[in-house]
Amino acid sequence: MSKPATTPTVIDFKHLQRNLWTRKYLTSILDFDGETVAPPLGAAARAEAMGVLAEEEHALTCSQAAQDMVAELTRAAEAGELDEQTATELAVFARDQREALALPADEVASWARLTSEANAVWHKAKADNDWATLAPYIDRIVEALKRQASYLDSTRDPYDVWLDQYERGMDTAAYDAFFSQVKETVVPLVHEIAEHDHEELPSFMTAHVPSSVQLQIARDLLELEGIDMEGCALACVEHPFSDGFAPGDVRVTTHIYENDAFNNVFSVMHEGGHAIYEANVDPAYAYTCLSSGTSMGIHESQSRFFENYIGRNHAFASPLLDVMRKRVPGVYTDVTPEALWRATNMARPGLIRMDADELTYPLHIMLRYDIERMLFAGEAKAADVPALWRSLTKDYLGLEVPDDTHGCLQDTHWSGGSFGYFPSYALGSAYGAQYLDAMKRDGVDVDAACAAGELAPVRGWLREKIWRWGRCKDAPELIESACGAPFDATFYCTYLERKFRDRYSL
Amino acid sequence: MSKPATTPTVIDFKHLQRNLWTRKYLTSILDFDGETVAPPLGAAARAEAMGVLAEEEHALTCSQAAQDMVAELTRAAEAGELDEQTATELAVFARDQREALALPADEVASWARLTSEANAVWHKAKADNDWATLAPYIDRIVEALKRQASYLDSTRDPYDVWLDQYERGMDTAAYDAFFSQVKETVVPLVHEIAEHDHEELPSFMTAHVPSSVQLQIARDLLELEGIDMEGCALACVEHPFSDGFAPGDVRVTTHIYENDAFNNVFSVMHEGGHAIYEANVDPAYAYTCLSSGTSMGIHESQSRFFENYIGRNHAFASPLLDVMRKRVPGVYTDVTPEALWRATNMARPGLIRMDADELTYPLHIMLRYDIERMLFAGEAKAADVPALWRSLTKDYLGLEVPDDTHGCLQDTHWSGGSFGYFPSYALGSAYGAQYLDAMKRDGVDVDAACAAGELAPVRGWLREKIWRWGRCKDAPELIESACGAPFDATFYCTYLERKFRDRYSL
Repeated sequence: MSKPATTPTVIDFKHLQRNLWTRKYLTSILDFDGETVAPPLGAAARAEAMGVLAEEEHALTCSQAAQDMVAELTRAAEAGELDEQTATELAVFARDQREALALPADEVASWARLTSEANAVWHKAKADNDWATLAPYIDRIVEALKRQASYLDSTRDPYDVWLDQYERGMDTAAYDAFFSQVKETVVPLVHEIAEHDHEELPSFMTAHVPSSVQLQIARDLLELEGIDMEGCALACVEHPFSDGFAPGDVRVTTHIYENDAFNNVFSVMHEGGHAIYEANVDPAYAYTCLSSGTSMGIHESQSRFFENYIGRNHAFASPLLDVMRKRVPGVYTDVTPEALWRATNMARPGLIRMDADELTYPLHIMLRYDIERMLFAGEAKAADVPALWRSLTKDYLGLEVPDDTHGCLQDTHWSGGSFGYFPSYALGSAYGAQYLDAMKRDGVDVDAACAAGELAPVRGWLREKIWRWGRCKDAPELIESACGAPFDATFYCTYLERKFRDRYSL
Repeated sequence: MSKPATTPTVIDFKHLQRNLWTRKYLTSILDFDGETVAPPLGAAARAEAMGVLAEEEHALTCSQAAQDMVAELTRAAEAGELDEQTATELAVFARDQREALALPADEVASWARLTSEANAVWHKAKADNDWATLAPYIDRIVEALKRQASYLDSTRDPYDVWLDQYERGMDTAAYDAFFSQVKETVVPLVHEIAEHDHEELPSFMTAHVPSSVQLQIARDLLELEGIDMEGCALACVEHPFSDGFAPGDVRVTTHIYENDAFNNVFSVMHEGGHAIYEANVDPAYAYTCLSSGTSMGIHESQSRFFENYIGRNHAFASPLLDVMRKRVPGVYTDVTPEALWRATNMARPGLIRMDADELTYPLHIMLRYDIERMLFAGEAKAADVPALWRSLTKDYLGLEVPDDTHGCLQDTHWSGGSFGYFPSYALGSAYGAQYLDAMKRDGVDVDAACAAGELAPVRGWLREKIWRWGRCKDAPELIESACGAPFDATFYCTYLERKFRDRYSL
């Protein structure tokens, strides 16, 4: 029935995917090298090589030969002549190709220039608390994104097109419903906690732990998560990230603050979640277009799951404390698991998204979403953003914004051209609660696994339901097949409500 | 007169060189990543990407379009229509292309398999002191190299072809003359020293210096050599190497032994010499085929110059001691520059080439050269190598070889397919003495520069005469234009004779 894998066109298709994989892999290596070890003066040469790789990726994806290949394989697929994996590769690649072809070359080139320039302006503007110099770029970026959205799908609202790019199947209606539910739960809860919160951070949270010891703790935690360190490199950087390079090669980075050891702990648990997802995609998809995580939201759901649903789980405080005691003798002797859990689960509004706790985090995203919507709807211009930011921060977090550096200039996303991306962070945090529920129904005792410091059952579920599928399924399909129902924010709201009422005895 | 650089073919030629440079750069990044940080399980994916890059490099170099381009540009060059730099690029690229086209694809593929397999066998054979398992591979490698040499130039002796590949212009006759002169000077001198040598290594040479301090010393020495650390990365590896990646990006690696701080010192001076050569190629050659060092021998002459002619110079002991005293307070307080110079210039035969001192080093190369010649001439088979090794080690170094692990299995070169490479190491050591003489005639006071720890005059000479030329000139032309005469081993022999008679008061 199915076309043998030795058909010339199928062989060409696999070869093309291998060549595209090579460029993705090399780009990741260059990025990692640039963030970790490359000397500052090497930046121009790296940009040159990155440019060549991007050009070649585009040329390989969009060539007439590649278009003819897709046409021929589509006919074969419709005739039922392709094996299942090749048919899935075709569906994913054809969409990549369609979207790459949709944007005219001059649009792509001017976009690269605009965002690269805007990014440089943002760095200076943030340092100078000077939104006004960035504002014209933000207006131009929004205009360009609306134009690009019309190339991608002229029948849809432009912001919906971008929401869908970062998380397939999502649109304004879906996010409106999600955020309104989150707002109803979280905003009053945050305000209620603030009224009762007179706690001070226990001193063990700021104990001095040397870099070399923290790196060892990072390794311990990655192993506890279930990462094979023979297939994972760990490095220090300014802004932590992680990446899956290839079969047997994932990378996790961290930033060490010697007086804030738990920053490293949860940052590594987070990045480890991204890395273990990449490491566990079905090896049969290696070197194909299916070989990575499927979306920003699903990726973030893995990192947040290990950071919060596991890392800040009441039952996990005990194995976490064991790691700390083993690596830093003396310092944590008198700390109880309960005290550690309480100290690592304080909920307190702050101005900076990157430092936000589990409860207030979605509020940071919500205010960005509100502003992005207004910019795309023409209800606001970039010049209005600082005032909107102050007003929404007051509403959601109950805080005054002292300056734009600690307000609308704090993130790099907008100047980099990413609109519609932030919402996927909140969604990623929310998916986890629904996983927890599904795991429970599937007989996985997450609390017991946490208490034992033996997460194999949790990994087993995630591998089977999420990780192994790579890019085979878009987020909505993946969630529904994993959890037996479409995404439902109720799980998340219930989880937050329960956890933080418990934490603050409300 | 000369063809404007905007001629379509010239633009295509520059574009092709840029694409080839990108592949060379990416291969270097992959190599560095693999040696420094990549996890062990990532090796297969790296090999996959390396394979794609090598294939693409070959395809770009040898395509019909690239051949037509060379033909057209050659006509333009002959008509005097190319500017000087483009004409030089053409000459260098045309030779690269000619040599890449000479080898049939199946020869290249079977060679890659053979050497990769032989290399794996060598690792085990060395650990097991088992030359017999490697021997058949060595015979096959020599046969393959003779066949390949006939593709490259069927009119020449095969070993001459390979000597020329590693150092243009060299052949057996030239090396015979060189080594016979070295032998006459060095062998009796080594034997004479051995009769008078009853010194013990002073204890400060084995003082414990922590890794982090040694890395700081490495940075100090690279800066003393004149490397801009904004354009140089330093990393730790098992087997130190260095590379020039791009404008503003060179890499130096080292291996730290905490009880042998001077191993790091001279290793870094050595690798720094390679790196500073790459960093100082004329920036006008960036992204072209001229943008790197010209040959193995010239490269080694730069590393050996900074390691030995500078690093082990009598006058340099004082600034070197300053660095050590500054970074390791207390340990070297009572050491005099004279004592340091004496301790870092002991000449004592040993079995291992990599550990050899300045005087005995060329003897290690000589014995390898003798054996390579015999293998290529059919006067010996691989099975005869261990006995030859023992006999030559006795003759040249006066030592018994206890086992093949410390004898003919010590180096990776032969199992990697490199025959004709070793001699360029000795030549590289020898060029330096002729540079010293030429510098003196050109008014550069090397001893004064060493004593002051201010090497700018030395760098100025090397930059002007050697570094800036990149691949524009082959070794013989470069030496002759730098030193005003062809290479002459007399400078080297005189230098060694003088230095070590002084050191041992003979």
